[in-house]
Amino acid sequence: MDASKIRERIRNGEHQGTTSGIAGDKVQANLVVLPRKYAFDFLLFAMRNKKAVPILEVLEDGRYESLHAKGSDIRTDVPKYNIYRYGDLIETVDEVKSYWQDDFVTFLIGCSFTFEQAIMDSGIDIKHIREGRNVAMYKTDIPAEPAGAFHGRAVVSMRPFKKEHVDDVIAITEQFPDMHGGPVHVGNPGEIGIANMEDPDYGDAIDIAEDEVPVFWACGVTPQNVALNAKPDIMITHLPGHMFITDINNEEYKA
Amino acid sequence: MDASKIRERIRNGEHQGTTSGIAGDKVQANLVVLPRKYAFDFLLFAMRNKKAVPILEVLEDGRYESLHAKGSDIRTDVPKYNIYRYGDLIETVDEVKSYWQDDFVTFLIGCSFTFEQAIMDSGIDIKHIREGRNVAMYKTDIPAEPAGAFHGRAVVSMRPFKKEHVDDVIAITEQFPDMHGGPVHVGNPGEIGIANMEDPDYGDAIDIAEDEVPVFWACGVTPQNVALNAKPDIMITHLPGHMFITDINNEEYKA
Repeated sequence: MDASKIRERIRNGEHQGTTSGIAGDKVQANLVVLPRKYAFDFLLFAMRNKKAVPILEVLEDGRYESLHAKGSDIRTDVPKYNIYRYGDLIETVDEVKSYWQDDFVTFLIGCSFTFEQAIMDSGIDIKHIREGRNVAMYKTDIPAEPAGAFHGRAVVSMRPFKKEHVDDVIAITEQFPDMHGGPVHVGNPGEIGIANMEDPDYGDAIDIAEDEVPVFWACGVTPQNVALNAKPDIMITHLPGHMFITDINNEEYKA
Repeated sequence: MDASKIRERIRNGEHQGTTSGIAGDKVQANLVVLPRKYAFDFLLFAMRNKKAVPILEVLEDGRYESLHAKGSDIRTDVPKYNIYRYGDLIETVDEVKSYWQDDFVTFLIGCSFTFEQAIMDSGIDIKHIREGRNVAMYKTDIPAEPAGAFHGRAVVSMRPFKKEHVDDVIAITEQFPDMHGGPVHVGNPGEIGIANMEDPDYGDAIDIAEDEVPVFWACGVTPQNVALNAKPDIMITHLPGHMFITDINNEEYKA
């Protein structure tokens, strides 16, 4: 199915779940929408934390059609949105037309689904996808580089791999420097401030077998975490795992 | 002489000319200072025109010490500044303390002096440096990608090289993707909208011999050109060729 058809299904409420694995080789994006008054701080935050927040596109002045997704509508084409007021998650909704403001600036941010596809194409299994779950995401104690109002700790996504696959997985993900790139940590969750692997902050928990190693990547959900500190009067994001699907091929981001 | 000593000499008025060749292997930077209300548009303009406007550092909230230049003062450590009001160049001055505002945001932008050093280190001569002139810079008809108020044409710097050196020069400059990278054009000035090579828009004219080819690079003076359209109430830049000298080594920007 082509990307515009998938966006249409999402727009019509026919697909409301995570978008993991539903868009083949198309780039999927994290979403952050903020009023213009926060846009400079946020763009600078993204620049300073490129690994977690790689910017794919910025839509200014209330625009809602992505240049990389013909006929798209950012306000309806994401399966689920989180609405934050002053840093608190107040609602999760299917579309955000009633919230829309003319001064909104939309940021589309690279997503690990791009390198997941490359890992699977290499023949290595990704457990949470096989099990039909959302990836596990954790708040860490790794400080993000602050910018204005935006400051706080980085969020990571975690995938367990068999020991003998870890080197290949690292090499594959390093080929996508603008899609979070190589992992930020391999092995010990405690070293990056994760106390309880069974209780992820976003997404679903997943078992780590005896012969598996947890591998951690910078995650585009980081903005949702730092928004708890920045407390913008309104901020709209995707619900983690429920992404915006573009017309761009993942291969275009291969370095 | 180390970078902080050179900055001190500039601060004290002991060096007022171009900074070409005076700072060895240290990164030199283009300067753009704008009130905060223009900062988002400008940062986005830079992101969209990375080749011309590669951001090295952003100083917010009126800060004037660069993290990459210990003890520096952006307000005094550039030999000459251009002051633009509503897009018009109104004055060229030695220091800008009297203009300073608490809401100023300072952008330090990569400069071709970095790759010039690499070209010379490879044993290839750079004519304008040998002749003690400023590099020739021209407005082109290449449109910059617009962002908000900032829109207009790109500026390029031009260096003539002997035909047999052009391939090497291209390869060397491509090694510095965050310092303008490889050339945007080689050969025919008319193809990028330059009518008269003897009359550069910035810097000094230079002869092109029979056996030489003009090579053109994206230039960090582009913001000064697009400011003519954006007309910010105030914008401070360096005088082209009169750069801010950092403590960073050029080698650190080699890809």
